[in-house]
Amino acid sequence: MTNVRIDLMLSLDGYGTTTDQTPDDPFGQDWGRLTESYVATRTMQQRVFGNNTGAGTTGVDDAYAAAYFEGVGAEIMGAGMFGLHTYPNDPDWRGWWGDEPPFRTPVYVLTHTAPRAPISMNGGTTFHFRSAGLEDVLAEATAAASDQDVRIGGGISTARSFLQAGLVDRVHVAIAPILLGRGERLWDDLRGVELTHSVTSEVAESGTIHVTFSRASTQ
Amino acid sequence: MTNVRIDLMLSLDGYGTTTDQTPDDPFGQDWGRLTESYVATRTMQQRVFGNNTGAGTTGVDDAYAAAYFEGVGAEIMGAGMFGLHTYPNDPDWRGWWGDEPPFRTPVYVLTHTAPRAPISMNGGTTFHFRSAGLEDVLAEATAAASDQDVRIGGGISTARSFLQAGLVDRVHVAIAPILLGRGERLWDDLRGVELTHSVTSEVAESGTIHVTFSRASTQ
Repeated sequence: MTNVRIDLMLSLDGYGTTTDQTPDDPFGQDWGRLTESYVATRTMQQRVFGNNTGAGTTGVDDAYAAAYFEGVGAEIMGAGMFGLHTYPNDPDWRGWWGDEPPFRTPVYVLTHTAPRAPISMNGGTTFHFRSAGLEDVLAEATAAASDQDVRIGGGISTARSFLQAGLVDRVHVAIAPILLGRGERLWDDLRGVELTHSVTSEVAESGTIHVTFSRASTQ
Repeated sequence: MTNVRIDLMLSLDGYGTTTDQTPDDPFGQDWGRLTESYVATRTMQQRVFGNNTGAGTTGVDDAYAAAYFEGVGAEIMGAGMFGLHTYPNDPDWRGWWGDEPPFRTPVYVLTHTAPRAPISMNGGTTFHFRSAGLEDVLAEATAAASDQDVRIGGGISTARSFLQAGLVDRVHVAIAPILLGRGERLWDDLRGVELTHSVTSEVAESGTIHVTFSRASTQ
């Protein structure tokens, strides 16, 4: 059975985006702080950064990082997460996930701009560009996932849109105990998720707080 | 040495106030959900509700509840927390904390309305009404606390004002894993508290997430 999943990193004040990017520091310091404990895991080192030396943490954070990549058969993301806003008028721009993106599944990119042909990358990732409604894209991704899960990868507004539509079975957030004070908040206008989903929480060795909401009917 | 402390209950989306009060249900359902795990502790049952049967939880939540009342020599609160807004024109209104408030210390109530005489309650609580600036009221409370701590009791905007002014040594929040979606958020415009304070987190048996920021120079 396909579950629809979200897995994000947030600050304690609920922000999932950062605002201190500059031309000289395109990710910014805050993004490093927000993702630090995940980046440090052995799984992310191997899967995202190609570090196959076995380096990285192996505790609670790594268990969540490993689960991040397990059982996902298709991914949906907003145009910004693909990188479509970076070079909107370049039809040859292949996004900023590199030659071998970590997804290794079909990825459906939500966009309202002109249709684009799909892009096949190394490692099994194919980007498809869709301007349909959330339910329609989710139906297509669910079919493509063939009984594996569909992940709503982000960004924050895309994740919130799927949550507000009641389409998400499991949402896991890794909360860094820092206060960013600005950016985009995940939880706005999501009153009552705990009424339809049960919740579990645990604190990792790094201090990251992992909170998971799961729809009662799912595992 | 006096530390300035804050101890609040928040929802996962950062709200410390609730908005579903009605004339028939003056606290509202949300307040009950926000405070449920604290109200259930043996300490709060005894100290706030006068239940001396020994009933109540005795786990992680109760340890924080007990710490709440330890070592506090004076309290500062906003006018709303005292109840001044409920009957603003009644000089005989003694607040809504009952005949024997749980504070048992001098309590400094911040107000911009006409001066009021102090009110002495049973059990050692005396309410003083002050319209001075935060630093001045804190200096008076610190002197009254005679080496014990000063607590900024609330409400949320009062707590945030002291945090924004950099006057708080330790802030503990008990986060209920619920999403209220509306109310008053504690963390707004508090970017960077983790740069001056270290942080610890733990999850209670109830699912409540306890997060504590402590200024590096304090215990």
